[in-house]
Amino acid sequence: MNAYFPQLIPYSFLQKEADHVEGFAPELALVTKGGGKELEEPLVVRPTSETIVNHMFAQWVQSYRDLPLLMNQWANVHRWEMRTRPFVRTLEFLWQEGHTAHATAEEAEEETIKMLKVYEEFAYNVAAIPVIAGRKSARESFAGANVTYTIEAMMGDKKALQAGTSHNLGDNFAKAFNTKYLDEDGQLKFVHQSSWGVSTRMVGGVIMAHGDDAGLRLPPKLAPTQVVIVPILKKGADGEGVLAAADQMKAALKEAGVRVEVDGTADKTPGWKFNHHEMRGVPVRVEVGPRDVDSGTCVLGRRDIPGKEGKKMGVPLESGAFVAAVKQLLEEVQDGLLEQAIAFRDDNIVDVASYNELKGVIEQGKWARGPWAGSDDDEIKVKDETSATLRCIPFDQPDHNGKCLMTGKDAKEVAIFAKAY
Amino acid sequence: MNAYFPQLIPYSFLQKEADHVEGFAPELALVTKGGGKELEEPLVVRPTSETIVNHMFAQWVQSYRDLPLLMNQWANVHRWEMRTRPFVRTLEFLWQEGHTAHATAEEAEEETIKMLKVYEEFAYNVAAIPVIAGRKSARESFAGANVTYTIEAMMGDKKALQAGTSHNLGDNFAKAFNTKYLDEDGQLKFVHQSSWGVSTRMVGGVIMAHGDDAGLRLPPKLAPTQVVIVPILKKGADGEGVLAAADQMKAALKEAGVRVEVDGTADKTPGWKFNHHEMRGVPVRVEVGPRDVDSGTCVLGRRDIPGKEGKKMGVPLESGAFVAAVKQLLEEVQDGLLEQAIAFRDDNIVDVASYNELKGVIEQGKWARGPWAGSDDDEIKVKDETSATLRCIPFDQPDHNGKCLMTGKDAKEVAIFAKAY
Repeated sequence: MNAYFPQLIPYSFLQKEADHVEGFAPELALVTKGGGKELEEPLVVRPTSETIVNHMFAQWVQSYRDLPLLMNQWANVHRWEMRTRPFVRTLEFLWQEGHTAHATAEEAEEETIKMLKVYEEFAYNVAAIPVIAGRKSARESFAGANVTYTIEAMMGDKKALQAGTSHNLGDNFAKAFNTKYLDEDGQLKFVHQSSWGVSTRMVGGVIMAHGDDAGLRLPPKLAPTQVVIVPILKKGADGEGVLAAADQMKAALKEAGVRVEVDGTADKTPGWKFNHHEMRGVPVRVEVGPRDVDSGTCVLGRRDIPGKEGKKMGVPLESGAFVAAVKQLLEEVQDGLLEQAIAFRDDNIVDVASYNELKGVIEQGKWARGPWAGSDDDEIKVKDETSATLRCIPFDQPDHNGKCLMTGKDAKEVAIFAKAY
Repeated sequence: MNAYFPQLIPYSFLQKEADHVEGFAPELALVTKGGGKELEEPLVVRPTSETIVNHMFAQWVQSYRDLPLLMNQWANVHRWEMRTRPFVRTLEFLWQEGHTAHATAEEAEEETIKMLKVYEEFAYNVAAIPVIAGRKSARESFAGANVTYTIEAMMGDKKALQAGTSHNLGDNFAKAFNTKYLDEDGQLKFVHQSSWGVSTRMVGGVIMAHGDDAGLRLPPKLAPTQVVIVPILKKGADGEGVLAAADQMKAALKEAGVRVEVDGTADKTPGWKFNHHEMRGVPVRVEVGPRDVDSGTCVLGRRDIPGKEGKKMGVPLESGAFVAAVKQLLEEVQDGLLEQAIAFRDDNIVDVASYNELKGVIEQGKWARGPWAGSDDDEIKVKDETSATLRCIPFDQPDHNGKCLMTGKDAKEVAIFAKAY
């Protein structure tokens, strides 16, 4: 269920889980004064809510009958950042954070994976971003988690963006907060937990994954305006017939559940309007002029394919056929953006077998994928020398030679390294 | 449009508007450390956003063409409270806050009143709370406003709850932040502004305005579950027919847009379930047992009228007639709650002509209404001696003798005094 937990958290709550406080302490904003007085204990402006959630879960959970427990909140969080960047790295951001408690470790793991799949599915099917789902290295995992799963997105500049995470917290917070339940066998046991979140960073992901030189390209499923109708008005003529046709087309689309607007202002040229809506990423443009009205047709333009290639001429104005053509084109744009992003992603992930190869690939700005059995120190070395970090050990493992690219030791898994936001 | 402004506001922003900082300083939570360092300037955890909004408006507004400007945000705010009370007085609360900028004082006043009417309409028609709309006294107005309008609700214990406010800010913040526009006449002019908000306090208002000894009574338009169907299962019998009928009834109601659930668990008695859903305020209960199924009927119970009086026997099970009966009953419950609240409110507002009368009325726990031309000091005297505050000068003015109840001087208006949350 949806819930809301207090934003200001006693500092001592964070201290209860050693890894958690160590990981978050450098990023905290602290309230030290309230109501005109110095506080005895500073309050943390929540960077995430595992501690306050467990403070409550410990009181709410008594028996196995109370499990599983799932709470989600939509909230703002703060993490002190030295270098901020709109949407993808901000001192404050908005997100949903889910928190669960389970009777067994297996159930907690199942939930952790399930939610990552929810995020992956959203990224692919709604945001048209072909993220790579996988496991974070221990070094890159959430402070307090046993394991963190992630979806990693490739931006238009080929940098990686961690677009959503799901953590298996094990019983770490349960032990810190004494979150126990009486099991059917009469034993008191610690709960096992997951937490997971997606934030306004995803907005940055959509902008940077799909944008081109002309501006935004929004996937139809996310676009606030899916279709803009631009009446082509001839100077001198009153344009009444064209505007009437545009209004009818708008009504027909609206009726069919399409988010549509008409840009019928007389003080801008069609060319200005085309640029304006292109920049804002409107997926489909409809052009209709006096000659179109006469011939009972219009022109559709798709934002994912610029220029003439993306134009569809002679689309009938008749409601049924027009709506069907627009709806189909919206689907094609949604699919088109995803296909383009998949092709771009696959062109820019390069398999490497050695550290030298990795360095070369990172220098080209691409993602390097290779067998990995390195240590934390090896990871730090990569970061220091190339600025790339271990983004994830992907669930989808390609064939590989089984030798760690860094150490030459046996490697069971392939990891992906990239520069990231 | 909806927007989101940063939560942490430089302290110096608040200081720009003298009344604003004076009013809010005692209630602030201050962030003095961030990222491990002492901050040069403390950051205020927003108690409200006029200052940061104006910081941006001053940059966004250039010309009369940029006006009017309306931004709304859904956010959390903090006001340090010594004595908290769930929902109605909490250190942190959730709200929407709207902020507007206009070319003229008249437009700002119009918007201020318009939004108060929106809140009033919501309170009456959705929350079934017959609020009294009016003007706050200067002493009770928002810090930084020229005038504050309010909707005041009477709770079940007859205390007043300020349930929503709308402020005409004049050009106070515009002057503090230099929010100017170039008018058509070529002159630079300050904008005129309004701000307005309703918060999670309204949740407390709904609970305390309608609740009775058995628990919540939720107005159907707000209730998450509008109808609960309780199958009456006979011990020993398998209850299959009854459960099937309940599921059909649920499907029919759902189809008709009603929020409905079936409480079909076998481990609780019908009596236990009745109490359970009564406590949670479900507006309409449907009872259906084996004999009902045989006779093709069921029983409806309305939460606003407890006991037998609120029962409707022999309601046909046939889908069309059943859905119509339930939908009508939901409307009756919505109206019934409002009517009960209106009667309760009117029974507990007493006209007074003197301070002695006022004191007597307040002592009885009721609201005192009388002609008022008193000073700030007179208001403070009332508060000190009776704990009541001037809730509002209602828009709907009753007839009165024109003599201030406190000073005997000429009074143009009637004010309402009450104890409040």
